[in-house]
This record gives sequence, structure tokens and C-alpha cells, in this order.
Amino acid sequence: MDYQYYEDFQPGQAFETQPIQVTEAEIIDFAQKFDPQPMHTDPQAAQAITGGLIASGWHTASLTMRLTLTSGFYNPAPRTLGLGFEFLKWRKPVRPGDSLRLRLEVLACRDSDTRHGYGIVTNKFVTINQHDETVQEMSASVIVPKRNE
Amino acid sequence: MDYQYYEDFQPGQAFETQPIQVTEAEIIDFAQKFDPQPMHTDPQAAQAITGGLIASGWHTASLTMRLTLTSGFYNPAPRTLGLGFEFLKWRKPVRPGDSLRLRLEVLACRDSDTRHGYGIVTNKFVTINQHDETVQEMSASVIVPKRNE
Repeated sequence: MDYQYYEDFQPGQAFETQPIQVTEAEIIDFAQKFDPQPMHTDPQAAQAITGGLIASGWHTASLTMRLTLTSGFYNPAPRTLGLGFEFLKWRKPVRPGDSLRLRLEVLACRDSDTRHGYGIVTNKFVTINQHDETVQEMSASVIVPKRNE
Repeated sequence: MDYQYYEDFQPGQAFETQPIQVTEAEIIDFAQKFDPQPMHTDPQAAQAITGGLIASGWHTASLTMRLTLTSGFYNPAPRTLGLGFEFLKWRKPVRPGDSLRLRLEVLACRDSDTRHGYGIVTNKFVTINQHDETVQEMSASVIVPKRNE
């Protein structure tokens, strides 16, 4: 994996990362800090609400960021800066013990209007669990330096 | 604040939360777990990259969730479930010591097509720092129960 320059990205490229596992303790810890709702923090209360504890969507999104970085797809990391998203959808709950991996697809590439020597790569980030179900889907653009400028 | 039912939401409504402060330790802790890039984890290296440490965008997004919950705008929390976003943009960096507050605007309300007795409220979530600069802007929809069904 060595896609660090704009010229290395092309629409249609795709790859998948190794999985990471999500623990109950991590789900509760994240939610207590950022999303303190019973279905994310209280396994017993969550039974009645969501059939058991589920991760905050923001936790899934943050884990997706980690998967993106550890994938080696953008490298070295500091050259790439997120701009935001076109959309993000949470499709299925993430539960304790789930293994998540990331499938990254390159949707489009274009020159940056405002930063000379950079291009904008639009990707689809699909977060998938151990049952091959999509738990989160997101389209987002990143600024990537060009090789020759 | 008591807007827990669909009938209580109307386009044009807006309000702002109290601020919360972001510390350097929290920025580094979040980034080490989810977004380990030098501008988020290493104050010294960040000087050259972004003029000092900046928070992961996902950290700002997660803090925005906390502001949303503690605002009391949606209450009780378990009745409301996020669906995802239409868009999210990071407009300005968040730095250690910044105070963030949330301005929430109701953009649109409509019946849910799939869940009887629920409506869908589309909001603009604007995260603002102590200099009244927008650091993050997001449009997102939430499912809210109706009062009379």
C-alpha cells in the first residue's frame, strides 16, 4: 500500500482492511464521555430498548477513522486532511464483540480549487461487521498532495 | 426545554447550549484511540503542521453529540435515534482551551414513512467556539415520537 499522492488514486479502486474488535468496556467508556444514553451505557436497560448494548454511532464513526489510518491507504498521515462528509448513515447496530473492518472505494478525483498542488479524492467508506453486514456507510473527501508540484 | 414530541418541533426554531471546554489532555486521549495523527497527538510536531495541537474532527463531532444530549432539546433521550447526516463540515480547527457550544436549528419536519407514530426532524447543528466562529456544521435527521399515537 503506497497511495500517498493524488496521482496514485483512481475511481474504481477499492480495498479492505483487517478487522478490529469492539469490546463492551470500550462501548460504555466512549458513550459515558460523548453519548450517555442507556442503550449505549447500561447493558440491562439496553435490553428493553435495543435488545442489548449498542455502540454510539459516533463511536463507530471514530473506529472507522482508526481503520482508515491504520489501513496504510493514506500515508504519511499528516499529508491528508479531512474536509467533512457528503453523507453518513448508520445501517445496523454495532454490539460488544463485533469485529469491524473498512472497505474503502475511490469514487472521484479532482484538482483542488483553492490549494495549489493538491487534489481532492472522494471516497466511500463502508464499515462492515463479521457477518458481512454494512454497519455504517459514508462518503467523504480528503485533500491529497500531488507528486509533481 | 421540553421538546420531546414531534408536534413540539417547528422549522425556524433555534437555541444555543451552554459551552463546554476542551482540554489538551482530552484532545490527545481521543486522538490516541481513534485518530493518531501528529497534529492531534503531539503538541510539538503539531506546531509545524497546524500551528499547534488541534482536535480530531471526530472528537469535535462527538463533543457536539454530548452538547446535543445535555441541551435537553431531545428528552427523554432514548426516544430519539440518529439516522445519520446529510452533511458534516469542519470549518475551523478546535484547539486546547477552546469553549464549544451548540446552536441547533430546526430545518424541516415530516412524518416517518416507515415507523408509524414517529416523525423525522431535520436539524442544523452548528458548533461554535468562544470567538463566535463556526468550527463544525452538520445537517442531521432524528426520529421523534408523536404525542398522540
